[in-house]
Amino acid sequence: MSKHLSSSYSAVKRRIFQIVETAQPGDIVSLLFDSLILFLIVFSIATIILQSYDEINAQYAVHFLYLERFTIIVFSIEYLLRLWTADLAFPNSKYPRLRYIFSFLALADLVAILPFYLPFANADARFLRVFRMLRLLRIFKIKRYFSAFQTVFDVVKDSAYQLVVSLSVCVFIIFLSGIVMYTVENGAQPDVFPNVPAALWWAVNALTTVGYGDAYPITPVGKLFASILNIVGIGVIALPAGIISAGFLKALENKRNEPAPEQSEEPPRVCPHCGKRID
Amino acid sequence: MSKHLSSSYSAVKRRIFQIVETAQPGDIVSLLFDSLILFLIVFSIATIILQSYDEINAQYAVHFLYLERFTIIVFSIEYLLRLWTADLAFPNSKYPRLRYIFSFLALADLVAILPFYLPFANADARFLRVFRMLRLLRIFKIKRYFSAFQTVFDVVKDSAYQLVVSLSVCVFIIFLSGIVMYTVENGAQPDVFPNVPAALWWAVNALTTVGYGDAYPITPVGKLFASILNIVGIGVIALPAGIISAGFLKALENKRNEPAPEQSEEPPRVCPHCGKRID
Amino acid sequence: MSKHLSSSYSAVKRRIFQIVETAQPGDIVSLLFDSLILFLIVFSIATIILQSYDEINAQYAVHFLYLERFTIIVFSIEYLLRLWTADLAFPNSKYPRLRYIFSFLALADLVAILPFYLPFANADARFLRVFRMLRLLRIFKIKRYFSAFQTVFDVVKDSAYQLVVSLSVCVFIIFLSGIVMYTVENGAQPDVFPNVPAALWWAVNALTTVGYGDAYPITPVGKLFASILNIVGIGVIALPAGIISAGFLKALENKRNEPAPEQSEEPPRVCPHCGKRID
Amino acid sequence: MSKHLSSSYSAVKRRIFQIVETAQPGDIVSLLFDSLILFLIVFSIATIILQSYDEINAQYAVHFLYLERFTIIVFSIEYLLRLWTADLAFPNSKYPRLRYIFSFLALADLVAILPFYLPFANADARFLRVFRMLRLLRIFKIKRYFSAFQTVFDVVKDSAYQLVVSLSVCVFIIFLSGIVMYTVENGAQPDVFPNVPAALWWAVNALTTVGYGDAYPITPVGKLFASILNIVGIGVIALPAGIISAGFLKALENKRNEPAPEQSEEPPRVCPHCGKRID
Repeated sequence: MSKHLSSSYSAVKRRIFQIVETAQPGDIVSLLFDSLILFLIVFSIATIILQSYDEINAQYAVHFLYLERFTIIVFSIEYLLRLWTADLAFPNSKYPRLRYIFSFLALADLVAILPFYLPFANADARFLRVFRMLRLLRIFKIKRYFSAFQTVFDVVKDSAYQLVVSLSVCVFIIFLSGIVMYTVENGAQPDVFPNVPAALWWAVNALTTVGYGDAYPITPVGKLFASILNIVGIGVIALPAGIISAGFLKALENKRNEPAPEQSEEPPRVCPHCGKRID
Repeated sequence: MSKHLSSSYSAVKRRIFQIVETAQPGDIVSLLFDSLILFLIVFSIATIILQSYDEINAQYAVHFLYLERFTIIVFSIEYLLRLWTADLAFPNSKYPRLRYIFSFLALADLVAILPFYLPFANADARFLRVFRMLRLLRIFKIKRYFSAFQTVFDVVKDSAYQLVVSLSVCVFIIFLSGIVMYTVENGAQPDVFPNVPAALWWAVNALTTVGYGDAYPITPVGKLFASILNIVGIGVIALPAGIISAGFLKALENKRNEPAPEQSEEPPRVCPHCGKRID
Repeated sequence: MSKHLSSSYSAVKRRIFQIVETAQPGDIVSLLFDSLILFLIVFSIATIILQSYDEINAQYAVHFLYLERFTIIVFSIEYLLRLWTADLAFPNSKYPRLRYIFSFLALADLVAILPFYLPFANADARFLRVFRMLRLLRIFKIKRYFSAFQTVFDVVKDSAYQLVVSLSVCVFIIFLSGIVMYTVENGAQPDVFPNVPAALWWAVNALTTVGYGDAYPITPVGKLFASILNIVGIGVIALPAGIISAGFLKALENKRNEPAPEQSEEPPRVCPHCGKRID
Repeated sequence: MSKHLSSSYSAVKRRIFQIVETAQPGDIVSLLFDSLILFLIVFSIATIILQSYDEINAQYAVHFLYLERFTIIVFSIEYLLRLWTADLAFPNSKYPRLRYIFSFLALADLVAILPFYLPFANADARFLRVFRMLRLLRIFKIKRYFSAFQTVFDVVKDSAYQLVVSLSVCVFIIFLSGIVMYTVENGAQPDVFPNVPAALWWAVNALTTVGYGDAYPITPVGKLFASILNIVGIGVIALPAGIISAGFLKALENKRNEPAPEQSEEPPRVCPHCGKRID
């Protein structure tokens, strides 16, 4: 009987795992579950946007509250089910539950739901607004359903070396430019360039060509320096963005061209001398 | 006699079809018709521009009215002729007329002329201005005459997968950035970042490096976040534009290099002395 | 004696031609002449810049006048010498002098010197300033001495087809965007978008990501339209610039890698059957 | 004994050289020395940033002074040790010390420390601020420890030809645009375009798409010229930055792909069943 129970327990667990994971084609229940989660993610983001309008927030406060509670309950159940079935998600791991808990997505999920169970009777409004923003972390749940976001994560991981090197050169150029510009312009515009960080803000916006117009040199020396910097330096600052962009485009290209699964089955490799299979 | 009539009817229809379509070399009547349509397209756009000046609009109101009526009559006739000859344009279609009516260009044509037959005695000025803008749709008629626009449409269609994936990542980054910036800056600048959509507008303009200067962070945290975002995120936001641009450039390259049919078959190279073939 | 005179005349002419043209290595006189012309070009540009300061212009008016007269005399002599030796510059042309006169550089040279011989006793100050700017055309003389500028001209000529096609798509997108934005924003900002050309100016600056901040949408519909346009349209507007840039880079690459003349001599092609040479 | 002394002197010198140079793996003393230098570089930059806040500068003036003195002493010792061991750093040079003294980094080191030994009793505050900025040169010392900066230097050296050519075309376009815009806009906006250099500043910021919004054309002719320039000219101005960026990316790619010496020799693949070699 114990064995029967264990077997049925195992079957239920496997079924729950299938439902919680991205749906296989034809699995209606899993698809409905995925749709509910996706809907609640989009709904959470929509709520953040709508609640940023004071009048809407005031008028529909009760509705937002109940919908938010429902969302938290669903996400909590999802979290617990994923924790329970972690050994199926990481079959080769020794401690699958710990591995799940400390994965990026599970941590984001937890921070996005846990605090809402805590009581904040006397919390002030400002704190609450920032706190409510933790719901934004739910946006990362979307990563499970769309491979595009996974692709971006993979590109960042694959190009880590190039990103670190080019970012360190960027930081070097920004600090060099900012400090020079502070020295040159502080005397003429003490309000616009009161300290080096203000000049660093200018440097980032000049070198990324955003140019809001809140800070720019007015002295001849400052203008000359800014001109030379822009003509020579923009390309270097554009490197990190370019690396991510090129990697993403290449990954998309590969994905589109990769052969369908049945074509990838190549015959097992065999030793030409004894004819036995080699893995 | 019926057969003769039918044959003559068919010949007339074929001739009308030739005239309405882009002119073959040497077909003067068709060329004149194309020129008239092109002239009226350019004239429609010019009218929109000129009528946007109140003084010009007031002074030449009558001239604009008569020319507009003439334009609508010509475009209506063109529409009906294209509808009539649709079976020649789509010889393999079962319902060529329906297919024509629901094609993108025919719908644009219809919306650009039909409403001008409706009476708007009591319409207010604002509505009329927006309504008059429907003429802008005539600009798409130009697509029939210049292959460049067809190329852009084809590129968008061919890169649909990459465009959808990269656009969804863009939307993700913009929403993430906008919501974070709203949270950070709303307290310091309630007028500039009153709600999340205002922050989304900032995010688009920062990440596309337009930077009008109507909205930018002023708090240290906001500036730091905006700086990191700009250095890392610009490349991702530039992807959709880059995909269209690269596809267009490639299509132009192909078009330019594709050999003219008669030149591509060159005779085998032969030695001029002994007459034998040389590879 | 006539023959002797003719021969000496021809030798003088050839020597003058050598001096006027870019100097061969070791030809000191020609090098001095080139240096004088280059100095006067740079001096002309420097004069334009200095004279734009009213105080400098007033103080050194006499010096500028005499130096300008000297420059015009030298450039006039150069023009006449080039005209005289045109048959050596274009040995295969039937009418070498006409061909010289109507070449781009000669026309620019002429317009940059001729008007200064005309009397402008009663000309008003504004006209004179624009008129003095004709000296700017002298900047094109520099093209004779630096191959980089010739390269840019060649790239524009080689990429003419792609440039025309992409520019026509750009014009299409700019007109479409401008007219839509005028319709959307004119009601809300009649001062910023008073007419369609004002909106076209916005469209160019948004799509090239310059974003001065003198014009931007403020209505939700306008902002949404501008956002979509920027994310999708920037790449297309960047095409003409990208084509010139890529062509220039490629030309530089070729120039750097092109083999020295002695290496390019490959053995004559021979028929493998009869062993005779094939041209 | 002299020989023994000489040998011991030589050994000490070699050891000092090892310590001063970037640490070999396992050389703890050298690593500690490198860490001290790196810490003092970062500290110098941090000091520049912190001292730009007047209140911080006033409050911690004494601490900054003592730390600065310590930094100068360490950097002075480092400079002298490098000078002493220059013959080991440049073994093939005839005058290794002169070669060291006139290397870029040694000059930067010297200028960053030497002036602080000079007395400036009566120096005014403004001079002192600029003077203190000489410490910024210490940032270049970082180049010794991170190959990324060396890579940027190498890229600039390798692309020198292309950089000079493209920069000269940039300067040409900027001067041409600036002078034209001055002529067109000076009448309408004498405050914004008072002279040609002001228009050159506009030209750089328009062509690099920064667009602060401090200067832009307002006349129809000026706007038309600026529009054409932006659509056609941006690519050319982006060339120098693009050349550096492409070269840097290529150098990173090469560095990443070059096989580590010991890993590149892999043992021949052998069948695990019969032990024979498989190709």
